[in-house]
Amino acid sequence: MSKSPGEFHLIERLLRRLGRGHRAILGPGDDCAILPATHGRQLLTIDSMVEDVHFQLGWGAPEALGARALTVNLSDIAAMGGKPTVCVVNLAVREGLGPRFLDRMYKGLGNAAVRAGVEVVGGNVTRASALAITIALLGEVRGQALRRDAARAGDSLYVTGTVGDAAAGLRILSGRLRARPAARKLLVDRWLRPTARLAAGLRLARIKPAPAAIDLSDGLWQDLGHLLKRSGAGAEVDAGALPLSAAYRETVGDDPALALGGGEDYELLFALRRAVAASALTRTLGVRVSRIGRITPSGKAVLVNARGSVRHSEGAPTLAGWDQLRSQPGG
Amino acid sequence: MSKSPGEFHLIERLLRRLGRGHRAILGPGDDCAILPATHGRQLLTIDSMVEDVHFQLGWGAPEALGARALTVNLSDIAAMGGKPTVCVVNLAVREGLGPRFLDRMYKGLGNAAVRAGVEVVGGNVTRASALAITIALLGEVRGQALRRDAARAGDSLYVTGTVGDAAAGLRILSGRLRARPAARKLLVDRWLRPTARLAAGLRLARIKPAPAAIDLSDGLWQDLGHLLKRSGAGAEVDAGALPLSAAYRETVGDDPALALGGGEDYELLFALRRAVAASALTRTLGVRVSRIGRITPSGKAVLVNARGSVRHSEGAPTLAGWDQLRSQPGG
Repeated sequence: MSKSPGEFHLIERLLRRLGRGHRAILGPGDDCAILPATHGRQLLTIDSMVEDVHFQLGWGAPEALGARALTVNLSDIAAMGGKPTVCVVNLAVREGLGPRFLDRMYKGLGNAAVRAGVEVVGGNVTRASALAITIALLGEVRGQALRRDAARAGDSLYVTGTVGDAAAGLRILSGRLRARPAARKLLVDRWLRPTARLAAGLRLARIKPAPAAIDLSDGLWQDLGHLLKRSGAGAEVDAGALPLSAAYRETVGDDPALALGGGEDYELLFALRRAVAASALTRTLGVRVSRIGRITPSGKAVLVNARGSVRHSEGAPTLAGWDQLRSQPGG
Repeated sequence: MSKSPGEFHLIERLLRRLGRGHRAILGPGDDCAILPATHGRQLLTIDSMVEDVHFQLGWGAPEALGARALTVNLSDIAAMGGKPTVCVVNLAVREGLGPRFLDRMYKGLGNAAVRAGVEVVGGNVTRASALAITIALLGEVRGQALRRDAARAGDSLYVTGTVGDAAAGLRILSGRLRARPAARKLLVDRWLRPTARLAAGLRLARIKPAPAAIDLSDGLWQDLGHLLKRSGAGAEVDAGALPLSAAYRETVGDDPALALGGGEDYELLFALRRAVAASALTRTLGVRVSRIGRITPSGKAVLVNARGSVRHSEGAPTLAGWDQLRSQPGG
């Protein structure tokens, strides 16, 4: 694509800063990066963060936005039980974003890459009407991969961390929810600075038979739906067992609607053939784990709460869908 | 990222259609694609095509736009002497684009992938204010890779095909240039349906020592600048030797400004240690090859024409830069 000299200099400056590493045979600056042969199987994913769709500039420091763009990709590798290796970055830049902003954003991205052991081996910069960071990330998987289609009836269902915090944080950032200062900071940080559960994913992949897993990007209920659809199974989820943080309860209350329907937690949802105590899994994976239900043969996701069971029957589950069904207890 | 059910169905439908192949262990539908171990070194590139920046919807059929988005990536693999293998597609969709448009665009992309032996192993769909197709493409390179930094003083400089046609076609499409019907069709097609020189790149990579190469995406003069900068060399280009098509001459005239400064030819520009007759290279590479100059130790690109020599000295060369310098013959 035709680029202005300014765009070239931007690409060069930004990529040169990132292109420090030992993994690539040839890093940024040529038509392609050259990577060494891989010993094991590889993972490949792509994800994008678009201004005014996924974020607003004012919601966080440029560094945090850059880091976040990588983290959402890292989370996909974590959900497969893999180790991220190299990435390429496509940056769509709009007018009004100065070099200082972009430098800071790339710095955040670069630091996140170093922390995750990822090398940025190339990229592209284009003009656009809104800022967008699209990252394609490669990873490797040595042993088993964690797949969405591996859940079987009888499996126990678990989730790492807490759910709903990021969705609450997003609502606070967009002015749709109010919180007290301490809770606000925690919830907003959970949206702005999510953690990809890379170590937990690697440890999970050592369990046999391979657990089914998915990362929570679209919301627990929706992501559970993806896992169930790929596995041809159903699930029964205990509403009371959902791990809600104190900040969530203080701000949202005990209603798990946001925890089920909100997204961007980047926690891992997984199913194990043998029921293991959550406390033991917490020790094994190095992150809090909660048992939230079980896989059933029904083909449907059922939420069990104090008022009875709420059934979700077809299509991609959404918060709206869940709310609608919630009004039909026992349905 | 949080997605609407509509977005999910779109992703699923489009990717299911594309995800037919034998290369991936696991294709679209999970958090990542799983790819087998590679025997040789890999190539990785990312490129993006953004509505209103790189194209307008009305400029071509949706199928052609989809195919083109892959071709610009294929061209990067060609320029390294590689064979493309798998890709992931990030689609940013704006309102007003119906499922029929997207289906047709993906069909074009899918057909181009099949023709190039590429498997689409995953992707992502997001909302945006403008349509954008971003593709990350992997390839493999068995023997030598063609790099930008391999040019040495004394090398002969060649280019495949003809240059400037796509830039003329783009100007016709955007109403800045008029052409007679036959020439118009040819020039517009050269912009809309570029050819990635994959076979030529593979054959070029068999020549020893490895030629320096780059694909012409930003325009010959600018891309030559990239190659020279990476190689720490200069070049002397014979303006009269530039391969201009009959359609170009008929429409633009004999002025090579557009051929030098316009972009998106997706031809290969390469430098060979030993001078080989263009006719012999044409037979070897299976595509027309022209010798257009030589690599010099000067660190500068010099255009030699009937009026004397025009020198370009520093920074990324641009059409504007070239025009400016052109008005200083002998400068």
